[in-house]
Amino acid sequence: MKSIIVLGGGRIGSAIARDLNQNYQVLVADRDEKTLLHLKESFDLNIQKLDLQDKTGFSESIQPFDLVICAVPGFLGFETLKSIIEAKKNVVDISFFKEDAFLLNNLAQRNGVTAVIDCGVAPGLCNMMLGNHLSEEVLSYTCYVGGLPFEREKPFEYKAPFSPIDVIEEYNRPARMRMDGKEISRPALSDKEIIDFDQVGELEAFNTDGLRSLLKTTQIPDLKEKTLRYPGHAALMEVFREAGFFSEEILKVDGIEIRPIDLTSKLLFKSWQLKDDEREFTLMKVEIKTDTFFHEYMLFDQTDQDKKMSSMSRTTGFTCAAAARLILENKFVQPGIIAPEIFGADNVCFESVIRDLKKRQVNVQYKRVLR
Amino acid sequence: MKSIIVLGGGRIGSAIARDLNQNYQVLVADRDEKTLLHLKESFDLNIQKLDLQDKTGFSESIQPFDLVICAVPGFLGFETLKSIIEAKKNVVDISFFKEDAFLLNNLAQRNGVTAVIDCGVAPGLCNMMLGNHLSEEVLSYTCYVGGLPFEREKPFEYKAPFSPIDVIEEYNRPARMRMDGKEISRPALSDKEIIDFDQVGELEAFNTDGLRSLLKTTQIPDLKEKTLRYPGHAALMEVFREAGFFSEEILKVDGIEIRPIDLTSKLLFKSWQLKDDEREFTLMKVEIKTDTFFHEYMLFDQTDQDKKMSSMSRTTGFTCAAAARLILENKFVQPGIIAPEIFGADNVCFESVIRDLKKRQVNVQYKRVLR
Repeated sequence: MKSIIVLGGGRIGSAIARDLNQNYQVLVADRDEKTLLHLKESFDLNIQKLDLQDKTGFSESIQPFDLVICAVPGFLGFETLKSIIEAKKNVVDISFFKEDAFLLNNLAQRNGVTAVIDCGVAPGLCNMMLGNHLSEEVLSYTCYVGGLPFEREKPFEYKAPFSPIDVIEEYNRPARMRMDGKEISRPALSDKEIIDFDQVGELEAFNTDGLRSLLKTTQIPDLKEKTLRYPGHAALMEVFREAGFFSEEILKVDGIEIRPIDLTSKLLFKSWQLKDDEREFTLMKVEIKTDTFFHEYMLFDQTDQDKKMSSMSRTTGFTCAAAARLILENKFVQPGIIAPEIFGADNVCFESVIRDLKKRQVNVQYKRVLR
Repeated sequence: MKSIIVLGGGRIGSAIARDLNQNYQVLVADRDEKTLLHLKESFDLNIQKLDLQDKTGFSESIQPFDLVICAVPGFLGFETLKSIIEAKKNVVDISFFKEDAFLLNNLAQRNGVTAVIDCGVAPGLCNMMLGNHLSEEVLSYTCYVGGLPFEREKPFEYKAPFSPIDVIEEYNRPARMRMDGKEISRPALSDKEIIDFDQVGELEAFNTDGLRSLLKTTQIPDLKEKTLRYPGHAALMEVFREAGFFSEEILKVDGIEIRPIDLTSKLLFKSWQLKDDEREFTLMKVEIKTDTFFHEYMLFDQTDQDKKMSSMSRTTGFTCAAAARLILENKFVQPGIIAPEIFGADNVCFESVIRDLKKRQVNVQYKRVLR
């Protein structure tokens, strides 16, 4: 039986491990013993304590495994991925680090390593959807995506499945996009539009910086990603941002030095935390326009209350696990840093991912109409 | 010529000094040399450096004067007033301190000192208006009051004529009021209602804790004070308050200890600062219901651009100066801690204050209708 080491036992890492553990020998490595103990007791997963900030013996630790899943926090992502590639291990990465992954492309190719990056739902699955049409002449790509609680609790009507600071940084960072062939940048939270979804009613979409690899790997003249929230959230976040509460610059307050974003994240953590058993959903709509067709993908997924798994963990984790299976089964063998759109351009891979998701009740609706 | 010492040369203190300097010999005392120099150069006022936190020689400093105006910051107010009464000097206080002034009543009576407290616009003038009807059977008293910029700058549509922390504390502190003869407490910012004013259009009124002495000196069964802002301000402030940004409790953020209210005040100071030459207004509506009449007082005042004096300074400062004149001229001689409603109950005093305000173009409209 092939074996996998999952680095990082957080929400997403544990979802991946639980999924892959059905077919493979899986070991979860994390530095936090409490997290590991929970994974052992609740899901009977094999565990190992490992501090990734300590690189000694890292290569030896991962050597016995056929594949590595890199599900570490973003700030550790790039360095960890580099170490995995140096150790000549195939890897699927879900750490969404800020550095440029393609800087590791030569190393990965030299070492014959397949390293699929950004392999979640968005980025991830949406890129694969686009990838599946890269053989056509794509004119525009738009991804609308958001994870939201069903219960609309005033005033924010939002719960963060990850740390508020990561969400707030998304509201700060200008959104890069392509328009008429030119790369432009718009403020985060701008260009708000209301979209009515059958499943949840009206949501608001606004610009965020989420295109990542797509700006590098494709020449499509129109590319944009927008985040979905309940209407009004963006305007409220703009108030906080414009008044300085999201600032990453140190401010002196009566002699105390503090970054406003740190205090804000700490306070919003309370308001934005999903309650135990609180139901949430993930909604993603991808629109791809080609010369001939208008393709539309629609994903709507909800908390799995039986398995106590959020839709964010399900959609992200199952996509990653599906890619991992294909690599383990030698269905995808191209070495280098592989953006998910390149992975999805392989028709066998794309269909396999969609099939794996469907088996887990993550249903993707697809339709195309002639333009 | 009679002489006055004004303790505190801030916005209000300097407005009082400039007004009284026309008829009396006035000295302004402050610990800040820059403030004093400005008062000397711009308004030819007599100045003296004096640190009120250092009590040595304080009694001697104020001894030569016929009257003291106490216009120090709130946190120094009570102790300073006490020292003035101990020095047996009549005083008009405008420091709006939090402590109970009536604790000094025995001392003031023993020393034969007249100490008029809370002698601004609200508290102050509104109390005098009520005081003028205390000989009737008053059934209810409501004061609507606010100071606002003419220019409505999103999102707060507010500028603070004093430190944001004082405003935020007003949004935190439960509003004490009397309803059907019972003292009750409602959250600040609650019971929002929209009122249309001829001068400025629709404003929003909500509960704040501003009744102060009225809850002690009167038995009127219905008493309330509401603050006026542009519509929407209160709801936004509630978001900040409920999310913890106004909290006065120390919070630990990555090892740094800070009170959220301090950071919030620091950030809002930028958004809430009146620009140079920005025009603002003060609006106050007092409704007094008696068995027979419905009395209504209406005050609307604007920035004096020629004299570079805000309406807040004008309405507060001129009321205080008018009271000071009456005490200096021995028109009001009652010793003790004198709440402004008691001062206003004296008809000669009340009419003199209204007349002094009118001379300075602070016009109070009064109407009464039979119920």
